[in-house]
Amino acid sequence: MVVTAGEKKKGLQTVVFTNPPILTSWASIVGPKEGEGPWGNSFDRVLSDYLTGEASWEKAENKMLQEAVELALSKNNLLAKDAELLLAGDLLNQLASSNFAARQLKTPFLGLYGACSTMAESLIIGAMLLDGGFFRRLVAAACSHHYTAERQFRFPTEQGVQPSPSSQWTATGAGAVVLEAQGSGPRITAATIGKVVDLGQTDSSNMGSAMAPAAADTIKMHIADLNYPSDYYDLIVTGDLGIIGMALTGQLMVKDGLVPAPYYSDCGVLLYDEQQGVNAGGSGCGCSAVMLCGPLLAKIQSGEINKLLLVGTGALMSPTTSFQGESIPGIAHAVAIEMG
Amino acid sequence: MVVTAGEKKKGLQTVVFTNPPILTSWASIVGPKEGEGPWGNSFDRVLSDYLTGEASWEKAENKMLQEAVELALSKNNLLAKDAELLLAGDLLNQLASSNFAARQLKTPFLGLYGACSTMAESLIIGAMLLDGGFFRRLVAAACSHHYTAERQFRFPTEQGVQPSPSSQWTATGAGAVVLEAQGSGPRITAATIGKVVDLGQTDSSNMGSAMAPAAADTIKMHIADLNYPSDYYDLIVTGDLGIIGMALTGQLMVKDGLVPAPYYSDCGVLLYDEQQGVNAGGSGCGCSAVMLCGPLLAKIQSGEINKLLLVGTGALMSPTTSFQGESIPGIAHAVAIEMG
Repeated sequence: MVVTAGEKKKGLQTVVFTNPPILTSWASIVGPKEGEGPWGNSFDRVLSDYLTGEASWEKAENKMLQEAVELALSKNNLLAKDAELLLAGDLLNQLASSNFAARQLKTPFLGLYGACSTMAESLIIGAMLLDGGFFRRLVAAACSHHYTAERQFRFPTEQGVQPSPSSQWTATGAGAVVLEAQGSGPRITAATIGKVVDLGQTDSSNMGSAMAPAAADTIKMHIADLNYPSDYYDLIVTGDLGIIGMALTGQLMVKDGLVPAPYYSDCGVLLYDEQQGVNAGGSGCGCSAVMLCGPLLAKIQSGEINKLLLVGTGALMSPTTSFQGESIPGIAHAVAIEMG
Repeated sequence: MVVTAGEKKKGLQTVVFTNPPILTSWASIVGPKEGEGPWGNSFDRVLSDYLTGEASWEKAENKMLQEAVELALSKNNLLAKDAELLLAGDLLNQLASSNFAARQLKTPFLGLYGACSTMAESLIIGAMLLDGGFFRRLVAAACSHHYTAERQFRFPTEQGVQPSPSSQWTATGAGAVVLEAQGSGPRITAATIGKVVDLGQTDSSNMGSAMAPAAADTIKMHIADLNYPSDYYDLIVTGDLGIIGMALTGQLMVKDGLVPAPYYSDCGVLLYDEQQGVNAGGSGCGCSAVMLCGPLLAKIQSGEINKLLLVGTGALMSPTTSFQGESIPGIAHAVAIEMG
């Protein structure tokens, strides 16, 4: 018999971990706006401005990611050299922030791109590589920066284009998790890697709608594969669907026989107050990364949440293909984090 | 004792697979220029033009990737639905080609970005996920298209800017490998995930120099970790360093006590004839992907090569950070493919 570390029954999309990898420490750094939001006190560090002493927003973003990784490791009295691998991604073309952070950290590095689903993607791959026995300790991380993303994906920032009501505010933030084969803390117990789902949405100012079908598909698959009751999780939290996308996903979940409220929420809805002028909510790789590495993991640690399903959601939007008339494909990956 | 599938000794960067995953089939599709090169007959399909009936080069690129995946599976009488996972990446911003190919293929999908090292990255992650027991069959793939990449990374194609002698020709091609836990064929026996190395090179028309230090670092680490003699491999082949980068890597290997010739070559040097006007050689994710999935795996199957070390090399170049004066970080991942 072939020795297997994980388990995925034939035909199913969900992996159950035999030796659930442990989140032994984590860190979150956010921008000023996120610091003013309802969870401002739950983050490790709030930047006082968007440049943090750097010459460009891009340099500020990669520094933020690097520092989140170092901060997460430092909570375990570890340095970057103590991590065997860095799994990271961001929204910038060519993953510029992750590449430059990895250059400074000098750890072996694998770059990932799942748009705003990247934090979940890095946790899932990390969990598999640990449960598989290939590594003992690695860091999974993701980040985004409002001003680097806006000028890359939409309009020159200085142009001051008025956002549409369905648009979301790309979060400024970086989250990093130290994942280990041994230790104490919340564990990654199962994961579902999603398929690309595209129902033909073409509006790049309405990413929530583009991602909702993928989110619902992955959640449905996860619950069905594991044969869980629909209220198994204390909280199912999607990445960054925002108000519109979350409502759509909720409707799809009801249609699929899964009860949404009170077990379902969305990081893009949670991150900001309605008064903060973010239209349909937050988005960006950093959105679910900092909500996880800030308030959500704190609530798991305190026992307020025992079983969390983080569903990273990504709008795989390319300005080039959008200009060519293509629709926006969505993807969602689910990662189950449980205490005890 | 924790059950481990793979093995990586503490402090080492190289993983040795316990149940080496098997490359059970593969496929390569190339553009017209690659078809006219020295290995033209070794590819499964040569496109007659760069659009292949599509409305844009981008659409042609994602179709080429999709077809390479389907063709690789079809050689085992399999369909896309028979693959449990697609691991893929490309050079386009937001991995547009891979996302759209994954949308059509409808398999669970993880997007990867390692610039031109992506084929090696997808093989390494794929091998770990199979050896770890999480999947039975997956597809690792990568692609690039000369005309989509040139206009994204450098100048509008219609501008006809004269390339510098140190520049490389981004290959048009897609390669896909079906990796399985069981079956017959060449096996992935070991892998080294590289670190980002950056010696300060800033010339975006000289990617070979930017990648050479990373390539040499990973090869040295791989050979040292496994305590192999420097002639263990019948061939060490880097991804796409081209003539300049390959010469630099060769010098670094001599310095490190590793004998380069005749055991060392480069896909970017091999893919084209000198007469084809490619300056320093080929590049792009597709370069090492099609050399592997075309001539190299054919030579392994025929017994001409028994032990191959593919060292995927990536210049993590971002036009945005380059405009901001940043240097070009390099990365290299090594994957050992052995017959029998």
